[in-house]
Amino acid sequence: MGHIIVTGAGSGLGRALTIGLVERGHRVAMMGRRYHKLQQQEQLLGNAVVGIAADLANHEQVEIAFAAAVEWGGLPEMVIHCAGVGEFGPVGIYTAQQIRMVVESNLISTILVAQQTVRLIGQQGGVLANVLSSAAQTSKANESLYCASKWGMRGFLESLRAELKGTPLRLVNLYPSGIRSEFWDNSDHVDSSGFMTPADAAAYMLDALAAKSSCHVTDLVIGRNE
Amino acid sequence: MGHIIVTGAGSGLGRALTIGLVERGHRVAMMGRRYHKLQQQEQLLGNAVVGIAADLANHEQVEIAFAAAVEWGGLPEMVIHCAGVGEFGPVGIYTAQQIRMVVESNLISTILVAQQTVRLIGQQGGVLANVLSSAAQTSKANESLYCASKWGMRGFLESLRAELKGTPLRLVNLYPSGIRSEFWDNSDHVDSSGFMTPADAAAYMLDALAAKSSCHVTDLVIGRNE
Repeated sequence: MGHIIVTGAGSGLGRALTIGLVERGHRVAMMGRRYHKLQQQEQLLGNAVVGIAADLANHEQVEIAFAAAVEWGGLPEMVIHCAGVGEFGPVGIYTAQQIRMVVESNLISTILVAQQTVRLIGQQGGVLANVLSSAAQTSKANESLYCASKWGMRGFLESLRAELKGTPLRLVNLYPSGIRSEFWDNSDHVDSSGFMTPADAAAYMLDALAAKSSCHVTDLVIGRNE
Repeated sequence: MGHIIVTGAGSGLGRALTIGLVERGHRVAMMGRRYHKLQQQEQLLGNAVVGIAADLANHEQVEIAFAAAVEWGGLPEMVIHCAGVGEFGPVGIYTAQQIRMVVESNLISTILVAQQTVRLIGQQGGVLANVLSSAAQTSKANESLYCASKWGMRGFLESLRAELKGTPLRLVNLYPSGIRSEFWDNSDHVDSSGFMTPADAAAYMLDALAAKSSCHVTDLVIGRNE
């Protein structure tokens, strides 16, 4: 059985997805920018995982990272693109650098990861799951930059799904609302104390991603209690 | 009366909008990357227009271009962001450079133009109109990159509209389907011969953008005949 690639695996939801996948018997190639975070996961999870440091908004680095994953575990059966960042506030406060960083980290990375996934397993088939956000379905004030990136992901993935119709590669779009994680550490945009835990969100997602003989989940929306 | 800023004014829909605005008695600051195209418009339309060359995906250039427009015509009463590009085909064919170019030209430019518009006329009020596309509402195969940029624009603008609610700056989102123009010159993605003309699309848009005392158009969707 092939392994699973998880991006953004060093923290938050990606970390929880990786732990959940290993608990379910999978091997995981973890990708992320911060290698020390991936190393912590390697120490926790042992030989079931490997950490591959990469800037997923950089075409060459994505290509090299996916090649390294294949070298380690063969062709993946599933790719879960979870890496992402956020900046929040009224439109005037975003710097040119922040605009570029959010669009590249969330949207351009999605396109580059999808390209590699189609290239590697477009023929044999498998699953490409992307973690979007409730912000890809609604548009709240002071989230314009984040919404730009997340709606962009949605448009890209909906078009790609039309393109892949009839092929053995399935697209699963995951739309969680706010998750309690270090995603919010440098933001006072929200009080994240009532948000869902990464482990709970990951558990729902992994249930939805489990293969069945006659059908599969295409879209999963997760809201928080209360 | 203030003037109107039109981006992408050198060709296609932006060119037709500019001509239509001048016919209706407005003065237009035209922005675009290709100065020779803007110069042709200056020769055609005389003192009613000025051409300002700028890469609208570059923060400093947008800032300088808007300052030049204000220098020429005072604060604008309306900004119409029409500049945009497209690349089409299956996801695997897009180069890293094409991905960056489409996302920057369509999405990042929208954010930067909106920032300058809010900064200049957020208090006094006016109109910020953006030309999106039917591709921001549907997601067809082989349009994944274009959809990424156009859905991103939509998410950004919907969030910005929520943010600006109750302020005197209005957002108008324009969604034309395919327009017959040089936009398609380097593409065999579609046969554009049956598409709408820039002049027809511009006429509908300018009617929708004309001020009325008790209401205003927020969204305009234009489909082609047949």
